[in-house]
Amino acid sequence: MTTPATIGIDLGGTNVKTALIDANGSPLSRRVSQYDPAIGPDATVELIAAAVDEMRSERGDSVHLVGAGIGCPGPMDRAAGRVINAANLPGWHDVPIRDLLSRRLELPVAFDNDGNAAAFGEYWAGAGRGVQDVVMLTLGTGVGAGVILAGQLLHGHFDNAAELGHTIVVADGLACGCGQKGCLEQYSSASGVARRVASAIRSGSASTLAHLVERADANDAAAGVDATTVADGLAAAAIVDAAAVAEAVRAGDELCMRIWDEACMYLAIACVNIQHTLNPARVILGGGMAQSGALLLDPVRAHLAKQTWKLHNDQPEIVLAELGYDAGMIGAAGLAWRARGAAGG
Amino acid sequence: MTTPATIGIDLGGTNVKTALIDANGSPLSRRVSQYDPAIGPDATVELIAAAVDEMRSERGDSVHLVGAGIGCPGPMDRAAGRVINAANLPGWHDVPIRDLLSRRLELPVAFDNDGNAAAFGEYWAGAGRGVQDVVMLTLGTGVGAGVILAGQLLHGHFDNAAELGHTIVVADGLACGCGQKGCLEQYSSASGVARRVASAIRSGSASTLAHLVERADANDAAAGVDATTVADGLAAAAIVDAAAVAEAVRAGDELCMRIWDEACMYLAIACVNIQHTLNPARVILGGGMAQSGALLLDPVRAHLAKQTWKLHNDQPEIVLAELGYDAGMIGAAGLAWRARGAAGG
Repeated sequence: MTTPATIGIDLGGTNVKTALIDANGSPLSRRVSQYDPAIGPDATVELIAAAVDEMRSERGDSVHLVGAGIGCPGPMDRAAGRVINAANLPGWHDVPIRDLLSRRLELPVAFDNDGNAAAFGEYWAGAGRGVQDVVMLTLGTGVGAGVILAGQLLHGHFDNAAELGHTIVVADGLACGCGQKGCLEQYSSASGVARRVASAIRSGSASTLAHLVERADANDAAAGVDATTVADGLAAAAIVDAAAVAEAVRAGDELCMRIWDEACMYLAIACVNIQHTLNPARVILGGGMAQSGALLLDPVRAHLAKQTWKLHNDQPEIVLAELGYDAGMIGAAGLAWRARGAAGG
Repeated sequence: MTTPATIGIDLGGTNVKTALIDANGSPLSRRVSQYDPAIGPDATVELIAAAVDEMRSERGDSVHLVGAGIGCPGPMDRAAGRVINAANLPGWHDVPIRDLLSRRLELPVAFDNDGNAAAFGEYWAGAGRGVQDVVMLTLGTGVGAGVILAGQLLHGHFDNAAELGHTIVVADGLACGCGQKGCLEQYSSASGVARRVASAIRSGSASTLAHLVERADANDAAAGVDATTVADGLAAAAIVDAAAVAEAVRAGDELCMRIWDEACMYLAIACVNIQHTLNPARVILGGGMAQSGALLLDPVRAHLAKQTWKLHNDQPEIVLAELGYDAGMIGAAGLAWRARGAAGG
């Protein structure tokens, strides 16, 4: 007897995750391939096909592949299955990745953006199980997001719904790389928190992380980048990350405690705005910030409790993601199952 | 030959609007009945039935009624067709208005909240014609709202989606009657703008409207209410309304210009947040503030243009409502048509 499975693919900027996923959302086999997107689409498709071949032979004849799904960085033309100038895939211009992959794998391929795929993964097989209206926020380099309403991913008229990281939480606030000011991801993403701590230290605030920022800035100076701008400061972000800030918060560093708490306060505002716009049953927090568990969840819930909305008892549950970095890969496989009429539809 | 029509009913706090609406959304006949909700549900149903009888006899035998729809103030139990403790309907507790009406009119009755009904009206027969993803903001006493996605009203898990007036635009901002702080409706509703102008004048800001606030406060004092609180200050709101503020803006009153511009700036932020959450084709602005036409629309669009979102060309059109105070009544009739499989589905 063979087990039917779909291939789930999460195409990132530094690695490709591939897995064979059964009809319940469980990975039967998996591969993480480090790669440089500059190798181009054709070589990337070969990389994926090779990973699939390895996983198949690993499972012998026990798995029967029925479809594939891929989550890609946006912007994209979803209907056409094309990636368009994704910032994380340098050199990929208007690439028909869905059809390239479908031809090579000889399978139908479901296609969506990475934020939506991750949200669908949690909805189908993670922290969103059991409800039909779910919002997921992935607090990482930016704030990725996905919205499921009545069991369906929300795409919107321009196919670009659920870019919740770019909702504005501070009028005329911090400049964002997207061109706006005051975006949620400047305050509540893992990178945003690290950047705000580094910036405050450079402005003279005392912190136990000061030596890390000095080291990062020295690295940046040696590499010739301006560490104080939004687009640059990469070394600082890599050295002073959300995990370092979380550790400093636990150790009682006052600067880090203040900025961490503000991140949680703005997340609570985002949750209130999600409540009054989409009215989901559950909001799921994932990504780097969510690795801190209760250190994130408790203050977000506490700030939310202060917004005592008296008109209706409709506050969503706020929970941590369950699938970690596998959410996108599992969700992409789930979209392939959904295309066959399965996956919690 | 008879024309088929549905009855559209907009149940407000001071009047009930009733109309016979044809399959294209045009009113064939209409009534506005002033009333006091304290007369209770049964007498209100009789009032509506009497208006319907008048309109029928006015049209002779030319109209054939096929259904009815009613938009009511929330909160409500939509599935059960019940109004639950609506603030605008004092004394109405858990009233099965849908079924009361259906029995009296001997017709099926569609039921939704007033904000959703107004949004559906504009979508079907007003400024939302031609697109399937529309958000409506009604800038009046508060900010009412409705969301249509893929031609369907969004209700959410708790049936309370699209309460956009209570999305937060200022962290720790002005107190709102809902229990939160910094809600959009404190800054961008007709009442909110009037209240902010009155409050600034009381704090000593110069304005050509100062004499109106003094008069209003004297009235309030005579009536024994505290004009400076959110819940009270009713006389001030009635005398210093959005129309008076708009007139002062046109005449160059600096205080009014500043507060009006901030109202438009926060509306632009709300539009950005709608763009990145729901990604509609169009956002429609209605209600008292929208009576000012270009005085509202131009600065909202200008503030929106400053938020130069570089990642995707997906900014919704921002337009003025077309149906004015008829939107709710027409939308309620549209929901009755929709229940029969018509109305732009």
